Amino acid sequence: MPHINLGNDFPGIRSAMAFRPETAGPLSELAEILLRDDEGLSRSDRELIGTYVSYLNDCFYCHHSHGEIACLYLGGDRDLVDKVRNDYANANISDKLKSLLNIAAKVQKGGKSVTEKDVQLAREAGATDRDIHDTVLIAAAFCMFNRYVDGLATYTPTDMSSYPLRAKQIAEKGYGSHIFKEPQPATVPRTNHL
Amino acid sequence: MPHINLGNDFPGIRSAMAFRPETAGPLSELAEILLRDDEGLSRSDRELIGTYVSYLNDCFYCHHSHGEIACLYLGGDRDLVDKVRNDYANANISDKLKSLLNIAAKVQKGGKSVTEKDVQLAREAGATDRDIHDTVLIAAAFCMFNRYVDGLATYTPTDMSSYPLRAKQIAEKGYGSHIFKEPQPATVPRTNHL
Repeated sequence: MPHINLGNDFPGIRSAMAFRPETAGPLSELAEILLRDDEGLSRSDRELIGTYVSYLNDCFYCHHSHGEIACLYLGGDRDLVDKVRNDYANANISDKLKSLLNIAAKVQKGGKSVTEKDVQLAREAGATDRDIHDTVLIAAAFCMFNRYVDGLATYTPTDMSSYPLRAKQIAEKGYGSHIFKEPQPATVPRTNHL
Repeated sequence: MPHINLGNDFPGIRSAMAFRPETAGPLSELAEILLRDDEGLSRSDRELIGTYVSYLNDCFYCHHSHGEIACLYLGGDRDLVDKVRNDYANANISDKLKSLLNIAAKVQKGGKSVTEKDVQLAREAGATDRDIHDTVLIAAAFCMFNRYVDGLATYTPTDMSSYPLRAKQIAEKGYGSHIFKEPQPATVPRTNHL
């Protein structure tokens, strides 16, 4: 059960956003800009970084939600998303993305964990200043989103079939205000905070 | 030295915002709504929560920047701000704010650290659902801001006289885009990432 009365039965971050639409505006806009920009990093790269950080933060709702969006962008390759979660160093992804996932993992621990060497390795693998900036901010933003979702103990669906449905909605319509206003794509059983 | 070429000499988060104004928009708006709302929590309460979380995250730039803003709202009581940083349980603040700082500290560790009991104690001290929501989101947001600032190793002024000057600017004008566009209130020596 959520720690506060959110007054709606949306899952995860959507319920907190519906509770406080004033802050939902900039939060949605931040996600839209960071995760659906096509310059430098691809949309699947961006979602994989968010998925991995959410996994490290043990946020079930976020790492499954964003993992499914990444999966959709990757043509349905769920095994690759799982490999990134558990062992990205040996996943079939570019060296550039591996070097950025390394930076994201450092940011998840704390900003000062990122070293000059981490950044140099990313540069050598082809990352630009903008790629490194976006990686740091995506990782930092998920440290916020994950804490927002779990700090309020929002509802986390355990019916895994609901995640691909919501992923499709995001891939098609983006992170606009529909995510905390429109009906969900499927009525799924709610369970307590995982 | 910052990890990437930010192309400006603003301090802290302002330099990252000037580098990428697209994401600076929603980040500024989020700070404006969360930290300058007068309902429930006062502006000084909100800044103290941000200061405390930044202190726990060891983000020198953020805990001094927001500590000075809190200080300004508290009529210059810098000792109280220091007491909140180091020993809030014995600071001269309300039981309600103490219970919310306890929740904020849990969020800083990770969202799942917040317990039903933490929330119940806050309720008993007079916190509303909205106060608890805002505390969780302020704490979560500072976990992002702190990582953004330190993950890029942005410039951190060590001339402490610069912080009150910028605090005055924020207290008067808010967290709008001026913070990464206008000249700083004083030219201060820059030092490396602390």
